[in-house]
Amino acid sequence: MSSVQEVTWRMPAWIARELDLDTPLDGDDAKMAFTVALARRNIEHGGGPFGAAIVDAVTGLVLAVGANWVVEQRSSLLHAEIAAIAFAQARLGSHSLASGNYELFASSEPCVQCLGATVWSGARRLVCGASTGDAEAIGFDEGPRRDDWVAELERRGIQVVLGVRQADARAVLLAYQARGGAIYNGLYAAP
Amino acid sequence: MSSVQEVTWRMPAWIARELDLDTPLDGDDAKMAFTVALARRNIEHGGGPFGAAIVDAVTGLVLAVGANWVVEQRSSLLHAEIAAIAFAQARLGSHSLASGNYELFASSEPCVQCLGATVWSGARRLVCGASTGDAEAIGFDEGPRRDDWVAELERRGIQVVLGVRQADARAVLLAYQARGGAIYNGLYAAP
Repeated sequence: MSSVQEVTWRMPAWIARELDLDTPLDGDDAKMAFTVALARRNIEHGGGPFGAAIVDAVTGLVLAVGANWVVEQRSSLLHAEIAAIAFAQARLGSHSLASGNYELFASSEPCVQCLGATVWSGARRLVCGASTGDAEAIGFDEGPRRDDWVAELERRGIQVVLGVRQADARAVLLAYQARGGAIYNGLYAAP
Repeated sequence: MSSVQEVTWRMPAWIARELDLDTPLDGDDAKMAFTVALARRNIEHGGGPFGAAIVDAVTGLVLAVGANWVVEQRSSLLHAEIAAIAFAQARLGSHSLASGNYELFASSEPCVQCLGATVWSGARRLVCGASTGDAEAIGFDEGPRRDDWVAELERRGIQVVLGVRQADARAVLLAYQARGGAIYNGLYAAP
């Protein structure tokens, strides 16, 4: 077991095949519908029940997407928001999205890791579907997150909108649970 | 500007050249000295003033290292702890470090993103050098982190030790400030 010189995250081939990445999206409802559809496709392809999309607020074009690929790509970091931020910044060739006006759509409210990643990403807006309660109801843990996290993001210049297409987003979580999908919560991982 | 199919993070070549990655480290003091030396080398190579190492608590061998490569590798995610976790899990070929007894050494206390990443990583122990106050004193922001984050990690089975070789770790932060190093805090980035 020798040291690793590169870590590579891959965009699954089905993304370009099954999602329309080229048509501009208009309004929060359409952008969240796209993000929830991504989450649903991801569980059908064996991934976790979370999707994220980074959208140019001016043009409505999708800059990058991500989904929960923790188990598939063998990295606990690979939550949907982290993946979307990684691919978005790689596409821009910059460590910050703040050169544009980018929105992060997440099919569920962020865990503490992804909350932090959102702050540093340079995104100007975070829009969420399912609630923390919805994710907890199927066994996921958001980690040690501040109760006032929305106000803390807004204080840092990031607008937050919760509960967009919440019922649809929750339905993806329930579909994952019904399939018996793995729940990974760090040391308390399912065996 | 077309979609990106892969995101690759690279271990800089100087790491293997300038650090002894093969000799077991004995005790928190030696492990933190290694981690702080890594942070210091990183600023000399143009990176941020933060280092991290994941060490096998049983053998004292270093599993992986990371440093702040946000600007150099163009990703706001690439804090030291995130890099170390990414390379460690790639080396193990697993999304969890919980199959072993691994400790995460960080030259400074974690920001909110890296706190969350630590929880999901499967590491069993977090040892920090410089304090949050030390990092804030040179302009870095830990983000919206819970005040009781140490207790929250311990409640999740992760032992936390603060202030190991704190003066040495703080000295790296001050050296970075003295060189006029960039401070990146999301939307409030220095120009």
